Amino acid sequence: MERTRHQGMAKNTYMRWRLPLVCLLWEVAMIVLFGVFVRFSPEADAHWEEEKRKMNLTSDIENDFYFRYPSFQDVHVMIFVGFGFLMTFLKRYGFGAVGFNFLLAAFGIQWALLMQGWFHSFKGGKILIGVENLINADFCVGSVCIAFGAILGKTSPIQLLVMTLFQVTLFAVNEYILLNLLHVKDAGGSMTIHTFGAYFGLTVTRILYRPNLEQCKDKQGSVYHSDLFAMIGTLYLWMYWPSFNSAISDHGDAQHRAAINTYCSLAACVLTTMAFSSMLQKKGKLDMVHIQNATLAGGVAVGTSAEMMLTPYGSLIVGFICGIVSTVGYVYLTPFLESRLHIQDTCGIHNLHAMPGLIGGIVGAITAAAATEDVYGKEGFIKAFDFTGAYQTRTPSVQGGFQAAGIVVSLLIAFAGGALVGAILKLPIWGDAAAENCFEDDIYWEVPEDEEGDAYHMHNPDKPASP
Amino acid sequence: MERTRHQGMAKNTYMRWRLPLVCLLWEVAMIVLFGVFVRFSPEADAHWEEEKRKMNLTSDIENDFYFRYPSFQDVHVMIFVGFGFLMTFLKRYGFGAVGFNFLLAAFGIQWALLMQGWFHSFKGGKILIGVENLINADFCVGSVCIAFGAILGKTSPIQLLVMTLFQVTLFAVNEYILLNLLHVKDAGGSMTIHTFGAYFGLTVTRILYRPNLEQCKDKQGSVYHSDLFAMIGTLYLWMYWPSFNSAISDHGDAQHRAAINTYCSLAACVLTTMAFSSMLQKKGKLDMVHIQNATLAGGVAVGTSAEMMLTPYGSLIVGFICGIVSTVGYVYLTPFLESRLHIQDTCGIHNLHAMPGLIGGIVGAITAAAATEDVYGKEGFIKAFDFTGAYQTRTPSVQGGFQAAGIVVSLLIAFAGGALVGAILKLPIWGDAAAENCFEDDIYWEVPEDEEGDAYHMHNPDKPASP
Amino acid sequence: MERTRHQGMAKNTYMRWRLPLVCLLWEVAMIVLFGVFVRFSPEADAHWEEEKRKMNLTSDIENDFYFRYPSFQDVHVMIFVGFGFLMTFLKRYGFGAVGFNFLLAAFGIQWALLMQGWFHSFKGGKILIGVENLINADFCVGSVCIAFGAILGKTSPIQLLVMTLFQVTLFAVNEYILLNLLHVKDAGGSMTIHTFGAYFGLTVTRILYRPNLEQCKDKQGSVYHSDLFAMIGTLYLWMYWPSFNSAISDHGDAQHRAAINTYCSLAACVLTTMAFSSMLQKKGKLDMVHIQNATLAGGVAVGTSAEMMLTPYGSLIVGFICGIVSTVGYVYLTPFLESRLHIQDTCGIHNLHAMPGLIGGIVGAITAAAATEDVYGKEGFIKAFDFTGAYQTRTPSVQGGFQAAGIVVSLLIAFAGGALVGAILKLPIWGDAAAENCFEDDIYWEVPEDEEGDAYHMHNPDKPASP
Repeated sequence: MERTRHQGMAKNTYMRWRLPLVCLLWEVAMIVLFGVFVRFSPEADAHWEEEKRKMNLTSDIENDFYFRYPSFQDVHVMIFVGFGFLMTFLKRYGFGAVGFNFLLAAFGIQWALLMQGWFHSFKGGKILIGVENLINADFCVGSVCIAFGAILGKTSPIQLLVMTLFQVTLFAVNEYILLNLLHVKDAGGSMTIHTFGAYFGLTVTRILYRPNLEQCKDKQGSVYHSDLFAMIGTLYLWMYWPSFNSAISDHGDAQHRAAINTYCSLAACVLTTMAFSSMLQKKGKLDMVHIQNATLAGGVAVGTSAEMMLTPYGSLIVGFICGIVSTVGYVYLTPFLESRLHIQDTCGIHNLHAMPGLIGGIVGAITAAAATEDVYGKEGFIKAFDFTGAYQTRTPSVQGGFQAAGIVVSLLIAFAGGALVGAILKLPIWGDAAAENCFEDDIYWEVPEDEEGDAYHMHNPDKPASP
Repeated sequence: MERTRHQGMAKNTYMRWRLPLVCLLWEVAMIVLFGVFVRFSPEADAHWEEEKRKMNLTSDIENDFYFRYPSFQDVHVMIFVGFGFLMTFLKRYGFGAVGFNFLLAAFGIQWALLMQGWFHSFKGGKILIGVENLINADFCVGSVCIAFGAILGKTSPIQLLVMTLFQVTLFAVNEYILLNLLHVKDAGGSMTIHTFGAYFGLTVTRILYRPNLEQCKDKQGSVYHSDLFAMIGTLYLWMYWPSFNSAISDHGDAQHRAAINTYCSLAACVLTTMAFSSMLQKKGKLDMVHIQNATLAGGVAVGTSAEMMLTPYGSLIVGFICGIVSTVGYVYLTPFLESRLHIQDTCGIHNLHAMPGLIGGIVGAITAAAATEDVYGKEGFIKAFDFTGAYQTRTPSVQGGFQAAGIVVSLLIAFAGGALVGAILKLPIWGDAAAENCFEDDIYWEVPEDEEGDAYHMHNPDKPASP
Repeated sequence: MERTRHQGMAKNTYMRWRLPLVCLLWEVAMIVLFGVFVRFSPEADAHWEEEKRKMNLTSDIENDFYFRYPSFQDVHVMIFVGFGFLMTFLKRYGFGAVGFNFLLAAFGIQWALLMQGWFHSFKGGKILIGVENLINADFCVGSVCIAFGAILGKTSPIQLLVMTLFQVTLFAVNEYILLNLLHVKDAGGSMTIHTFGAYFGLTVTRILYRPNLEQCKDKQGSVYHSDLFAMIGTLYLWMYWPSFNSAISDHGDAQHRAAINTYCSLAACVLTTMAFSSMLQKKGKLDMVHIQNATLAGGVAVGTSAEMMLTPYGSLIVGFICGIVSTVGYVYLTPFLESRLHIQDTCGIHNLHAMPGLIGGIVGAITAAAATEDVYGKEGFIKAFDFTGAYQTRTPSVQGGFQAAGIVVSLLIAFAGGALVGAILKLPIWGDAAAENCFEDDIYWEVPEDEEGDAYHMHNPDKPASP
């Protein structure tokens, strides 16, 4: 034990110069790139009065700000409080969960504004940003937060920043292929955010496999109050998911419909999660891990189809299935992935994002393929799938095929990108901790000495953690 | 002591097959009923473009989604985080508070969409749902969350689901009688949500009276951090209450006014709560129980009248009174109700919802009776009270009378319904815990072993809880 | 030690009659003043239908409620949850942080509605209030919450109420001078809220200097979970700050732009805070105090300029600088201010609000001075700076000069007002605690006895706090 510890201690987790250097250099790069490229969209620019006349708008309320800002704020809460607090369930990794999530998301949204801007909002040599860009940047970072869930507690903040840089880039490429080349619909991001983010993260954690992780098995659990903190994250994700899936849908009925479908799917998901959580445990007791996570699978799984005519009962069915799949995943699949495939998935993103994301992609493909002019109305049909211009003649079944292709592309880019980024993160220069120091805030944070828990021992790493 | 414990242990709290069965069966029933009945309202349906033309709307911003969605999200937070965390004040019942609230609300909103839909949104054999239905479903479930407060810690999750099923049904009936038959105004639900929900819950807890509850007196208290978790619930309820009371008011001035009145009432309520909390305690110290609860009474008590011309100073007066009534209730009435009337009211809903709800109904009746065309304007008067069609000739004083009748009807249905449901819940098949295991998460939840608190003992129920 | 304690105990912290008296008298005063003065604005009044015709509005969606209510709710959360929880970092002052913040803000918003109403919304002898007044009242109280941060843990609730009364009054005067007399722009309140509030609070805490405060040095720290509670406050402030800075901007592009600029500034600020937090600590570890506070400086510092054409990269630069300034302030300036200038600044508001507020005022002055018709467009230029009527001929550089004058005025009123109010609070009649009882909830709150922490000792103040 002492020897392993010594080996561990040999790892240099000293952040003093490396972390500041990365943060400062990258932020300077952001400033330069923003200076060269980023300007306000016409709706946020002071020339708006002229724009309004040009667009024949009679009121300021027609500014996209009023259509999307409330949803943006909900999404913003999901990224920072939702994901941040969801990951505080570990007994001694709350600072890292909330703090590193804060760091990577704050960096990620800037880089995402650029990457997505170049692909989607580039006009006359400038990226013109408005509220929809902010939402999309938050979405993009959402996929990084998901991947973070797989490696939670096992990486240094620098590794997280490096991963964010690459993952945001790959996200934007994948998104461009799906939305622009394949002309796929994915407003809530079942494919672009969840499938991509989760399989990317799982690949990374596979590459970073740590054989001795059972050394800190005791720190991978929760304490009573850390489980309550995590429920803050869960509930904000659950409550605001209707905003997430509707945030960038078309104005009017599409936003309205996406919110309703997501609301229904999530409600059903809670019941099947509770059912299977109790059923799969010998004593029949509910497990907070399931409640914290599997209840959200229903939101993931209608990410593609929520804005379509999935219908409320269709949403209930999707939520019903995903609560089961996700809970079963936590009970049987996560241990299997760890022991057999060496995939150490701290938060179980395979159950919350990967499988429900795939289901979401498939449900989206089916819903698109099943669309008819009868159900959508002639105009509604064209508007819902944007069958205009080059896509005027695309049929629902062809659209369904392209949707399915979108899943495959997302998977391929996730695996390839994850492997590449995992390999980069394996370099011994990023300051990650030894196995026995994983899941412990004390490595990267000033931790207050307190009477609760074993903080004292953490401040004295040369003493054994367990007395 | 040992003998009582043995009797207690004899109670079968094993949930493994019963809870899953109930959850799965009911969710399947929801899917079938949604499949038969629930469709999108025209504003959420893909035919919206045609609808827009039909209604002569020039912009998507006229979709009801943009009038109500921000309020809906606030209400949603109140139900799941507000009520859920408000009840985490107990030292060892945080999982049950947040988790069971989550479960019952997720089921309740589905059943409420159906029940309220049949009464209010049934067209051509289908229930057509939009964002207003989502708000109303959340409202309906709010009354169940209130009743849950009375029985918190003393019931099994199955009992809660059974209660939700019945209470939602009765809520919808009562609401129908009030809104449609009596033509009563109650946008913030002083009568339909608070009076009904609270007296229903109090009746249920009276029927479920447990004589030996003082056995777990120590677990009925809070710890330092559980009180802070509860303040999260309190503050979200307090902050978003203006959205609650304005969420389904008429577009325009009514929503605007309801938010202002509620804001004022709540502000005044905080000051009188603090005053009486200090005054009624010998040492003059503030009591977190009062701050967590009585500060909210002002929101309850303007639930009926907030959208009327109550005026800001009228709202202050209502809030002023309710802070006092509610705090005095916690100090004197709750112990009296428990010792004399055998009403064991865990969260003190009598003080937070029952009395302020009654006051709210009365204030609403008076405000309606005092309405004049002078104050409201000719058009405003008709619009505010919907004095059209069959109600064209109704006068304010008659309206006041009907409002008062609404209180009586709500009370009657609450008492009768509570008695019925209490009797059903008393059946020995639902898996509730013995008295000495009340207020303890360990019965229904996997609880992490931790250094904080006496979790260890809870994992070993055959050992005495107090050393 | 025992002797000091005895001296301390001599201080009379008994609140039983004083606190209720102040609360009740003041609330009665509010009711009377509201009764005489406060009515609904035309947009919240039942005569709205007539108003709509008069203003040629075709839809209810044009009601200001729909332009500003979502932002209002975000600001509301910032004041009550944001500031309240940000201050819960102290290990034994969570009740005081959240509870007293709740009390002073609930009183302050009422008094602010009156004070600001007399200055800005007084028509025909009445103050006409709408949603914008609610936001402004919250803003005004924000400056009190800031000042509260400096004296956190050292004052009685009565002192806080007295301070609120005076500070709100002075805030309104200062705001009137800036906005109406100097015709200065300050939508996000870098000057009126942050500079004024912070220097006011710092002056007050200087006057209330306590020489023996090191006696309770141990209670000035945090514990693990109190730091997580504080992060709830931090994140809500951080996430909703775009709403704060855009809440009362002009409809349309100005609100849109203010949100984007703030979003950018805050993102950059996180990275430089993390960088310097690690860099300035010998062990290179991150300090939660910095993450909780300095990450927000970027929002403060674009308070004046966010609605101007600051541009996204300009915002990044401001955020970049402020993260550094603020973090450096925490490490070097706070100890200096305390030891040399006897300014005991519990939350470090000098670093989070004072310096960034000054920077914000300066950035605003420069941005205004640099404005051109080219950048803003002819109409946009006039609209952005309201160069109409008496100000038709004001040039950008003159505007810049007035903006700078606004900083000076805010500082002067803050210092003078702070000195006056500090002197009043020093009177020995308000029930503040002795030095060794500071930062301890037990003085003013019923604190549950629990196994976590040293609650037991707090309940027995005659026993020494440290065993």
